[in-house]
Amino acid sequence: MENQNLQAFLDLQKRIYHYKSAATIMSFDASTIAPIGGSAVRGERAAFFGLEMYKLRTSDEMKNLLDALLPIKDTLEIKYQAMLREAKKTYDKLTKIPGELVAKHEQLQNDAMDIWQEARAKDDFSLFAPILKELIALTKEMLEYRKEEGKTAYEVLLGDFEEGMSIPAYDAFFEDLKKVIVPLVKKVKEAHDQPVGDFIFQTVPVESQRALGKMIAEKIGYDLSRGYIGETAHPFCSGTDKYDTRITTRYYEEDFKASFYGIIHETGHAIYEQSVADGLFGTNIDGGVSMGIHESQSRFYENVIGRSKAFWECMIEEVKTFLPETFADKNAQDFYEALNIAKPSLIRVEADELTYCLHIIIRYEIERMLFQDEIEVDQLPAVWNAKYEEYLGITPPNNAEGVLQDIHWSMGAYGYFPTYALGSAYAAQFLAYMKKEFDVDASVRAGDFAAIKKWLTEHIHQYGATYPPRELVKRIAGEELNAKYYTDYLTEKFHEVYHLGE
Amino acid sequence: MENQNLQAFLDLQKRIYHYKSAATIMSFDASTIAPIGGSAVRGERAAFFGLEMYKLRTSDEMKNLLDALLPIKDTLEIKYQAMLREAKKTYDKLTKIPGELVAKHEQLQNDAMDIWQEARAKDDFSLFAPILKELIALTKEMLEYRKEEGKTAYEVLLGDFEEGMSIPAYDAFFEDLKKVIVPLVKKVKEAHDQPVGDFIFQTVPVESQRALGKMIAEKIGYDLSRGYIGETAHPFCSGTDKYDTRITTRYYEEDFKASFYGIIHETGHAIYEQSVADGLFGTNIDGGVSMGIHESQSRFYENVIGRSKAFWECMIEEVKTFLPETFADKNAQDFYEALNIAKPSLIRVEADELTYCLHIIIRYEIERMLFQDEIEVDQLPAVWNAKYEEYLGITPPNNAEGVLQDIHWSMGAYGYFPTYALGSAYAAQFLAYMKKEFDVDASVRAGDFAAIKKWLTEHIHQYGATYPPRELVKRIAGEELNAKYYTDYLTEKFHEVYHLGE
Repeated sequence: MENQNLQAFLDLQKRIYHYKSAATIMSFDASTIAPIGGSAVRGERAAFFGLEMYKLRTSDEMKNLLDALLPIKDTLEIKYQAMLREAKKTYDKLTKIPGELVAKHEQLQNDAMDIWQEARAKDDFSLFAPILKELIALTKEMLEYRKEEGKTAYEVLLGDFEEGMSIPAYDAFFEDLKKVIVPLVKKVKEAHDQPVGDFIFQTVPVESQRALGKMIAEKIGYDLSRGYIGETAHPFCSGTDKYDTRITTRYYEEDFKASFYGIIHETGHAIYEQSVADGLFGTNIDGGVSMGIHESQSRFYENVIGRSKAFWECMIEEVKTFLPETFADKNAQDFYEALNIAKPSLIRVEADELTYCLHIIIRYEIERMLFQDEIEVDQLPAVWNAKYEEYLGITPPNNAEGVLQDIHWSMGAYGYFPTYALGSAYAAQFLAYMKKEFDVDASVRAGDFAAIKKWLTEHIHQYGATYPPRELVKRIAGEELNAKYYTDYLTEKFHEVYHLGE
Repeated sequence: MENQNLQAFLDLQKRIYHYKSAATIMSFDASTIAPIGGSAVRGERAAFFGLEMYKLRTSDEMKNLLDALLPIKDTLEIKYQAMLREAKKTYDKLTKIPGELVAKHEQLQNDAMDIWQEARAKDDFSLFAPILKELIALTKEMLEYRKEEGKTAYEVLLGDFEEGMSIPAYDAFFEDLKKVIVPLVKKVKEAHDQPVGDFIFQTVPVESQRALGKMIAEKIGYDLSRGYIGETAHPFCSGTDKYDTRITTRYYEEDFKASFYGIIHETGHAIYEQSVADGLFGTNIDGGVSMGIHESQSRFYENVIGRSKAFWECMIEEVKTFLPETFADKNAQDFYEALNIAKPSLIRVEADELTYCLHIIIRYEIERMLFQDEIEVDQLPAVWNAKYEEYLGITPPNNAEGVLQDIHWSMGAYGYFPTYALGSAYAAQFLAYMKKEFDVDASVRAGDFAAIKKWLTEHIHQYGATYPPRELVKRIAGEELNAKYYTDYLTEKFHEVYHLGE
């Protein structure tokens, strides 16, 4: 490295990485096995490390290095340009917010996650409401320092999770989806041939599910020597870096697909993280570029691949090896249809591919109202239930299966949900591109997932956060987000599953 | 707090605590679930945090605060005196060693633990030897900076784990033990009435062992809302503070006592940590004062209580509730005798109470030779096996059950083993004191462990590291370590178990 400032900048990034990775390990620990009695202390610790990271990211050292390096940015390698771009963005964002608020936010997040877990277990929203109010109020207070011309507070949050996405952009996107999905759901509901899926809910012992889950995770490309499959109420993927990227799932004896697809989904995230180029390790671009792109990877593996006919043509014999008696009389077509039954349901993470986006639209609308002060936290259960009735025709029987189901709000992650829908759309878009290069179905049918992983690594994973999401997508085939790939994909698939006429 | 310097000193302690507790969580994670592929990066991270802690402990800020506060130490509360004493000791110790060596040591420890695990699994000492050599060489290099008048390098290490213990002190102590134990082992071996213990090795499913272990841990006083029972090859206790103190054990289907006593032992450590006074939280005296005292607590619960006749008179029905068919025809006396069979064996952590100290003497002698350059690392398997033949009359069939069995050397913990024997002796000494105050057997027989925990908390736990170990012991009944309590205890117990004449 010839440039001493650049070397100093990388060293500083590395120090920040150490704090970030420690926080990641502690957070994984907190979400999986840490005792409830240590919750207050963990919150204090998280706040301490949050503040240390904040200090480094907003330090004079950082400022001076940015001042020295930004003017010569264009002369540097593309990856260094990206690191500087991201560091500058973070610096600007953080220096606007007082450090005490950042620390308080960290502490509150930590506490809220524990309380949410308890509230969910006890089905008691009133336990969660006070801290949720505090967390939202604090988020709003922090947003006061980040006002941007022509942007509402919620829009600033949306941009945090997916650079370049605004309320009008999301509105247009969701409009495109609604136009196709709403009539399609109706057609599916009225279809003459309704697939049979009850057989899926046969008892599968948790140990068998673990073995099956591990098998499929490794088969599609998860390197478990750099990973781990844990257990939590809400599945997630969390990693310090490509050398340690973990996932979790949950196991229900009477619903093996919950753990199975939970694992495939999170493995999609994990493969992304594990495939970032070595040269980005320990920097601020060493990881997925955005929530939307990240989610495109998990949904690609979970739905586009994992719920395809080709997948079950490959997987049927494997599953029967693990569960010799359970599904003895079933074939690939049975699984394909059973696992693509589209029917309004309560739990987002268990929703089918077709109705899924309705869950997202509900959350998007509720968050927007919350941040535009149109509703109060105490109204959330009622508003939630009314929206479910309106969009999905069902009302949650309790808050555990309603407004308390998701971890996101306890984590202070507002504006995150819409990226899930973005992920679904990008996944379909990437499939279309991939199909132009090789026979994806044939690969899957042969149980060969290497070509898929290779394509994704080549076009997406290796870059980490080198290119902003819209640029990353545009580099692949010259076009940006296009909802049509997704709506075409859904139309074709559900016509096939439900034997609908053209 | 009137004294601003004292407040600043406490704030600094708190910052150090945050680093230490983060390192503890990461180390627990590394020992339990972290993937092998992240090992190198974890080593780097551990080194980074080790160095950060080192910087704080040796900072100008620390120096200035010590300079300001030590002169007025005697005017302060006893706990602050202790904090200053410990901080000064640490400062002096660390400022003698260059920071790079400390970081290198942290990194090497981390790597060595992973390699040891692999070497043990593969029964291949040659895998472990190179890094063990490095670690020992580095330890010696560090000791060069800590030379003390009249002390050998190994003696400095001994003092690190148990302040006030020297080679002559240990030699005298072990001599006292040998004088009684060696003839007692002989008498036991030749005893006419040999207890029957095969029934203990009936199959007990791991799930039942987990339930049984959790029950006993809670019964004797482990607060699991501030704890966790994990699984590792080598059981240990590790905590960030009283609010999060964890233990691990291992489960063998054909030997339930391994997990059962592993849990009781580690619970003894955990109860100690959980019972430190609230007011010491986040300081440098918030935890057990020394290895010897710590081990006295684990051995007290494991052996003195857990292998007593009174314990099994209480526990027999409980065990039968968990395992209704396994031990249907057995009574308390059967368990008492079976669990106190004294017979030379290979694995230290599974050794009986009587022969246990022989395992320690072997390690003590080997470590002393290593640090006095009388043997080389490559000779360890041969020396180990020869010592086992000499002292215990058995030769390990492989290195996994021999020189590779313990984690300690991979952790760089040399001089640690002798404290185990110290712990056994202190445990018997404390029992004798306790018996003067209440009927310990009657409490145990009634399943009432509260009085025991209360006594230990009152005399030992609450103080954390307020008093140095020898002072702590002396405060209880006016005397220091006295091996006679232990040898009397062993003599009485094994005469009873083996029906020996006087």
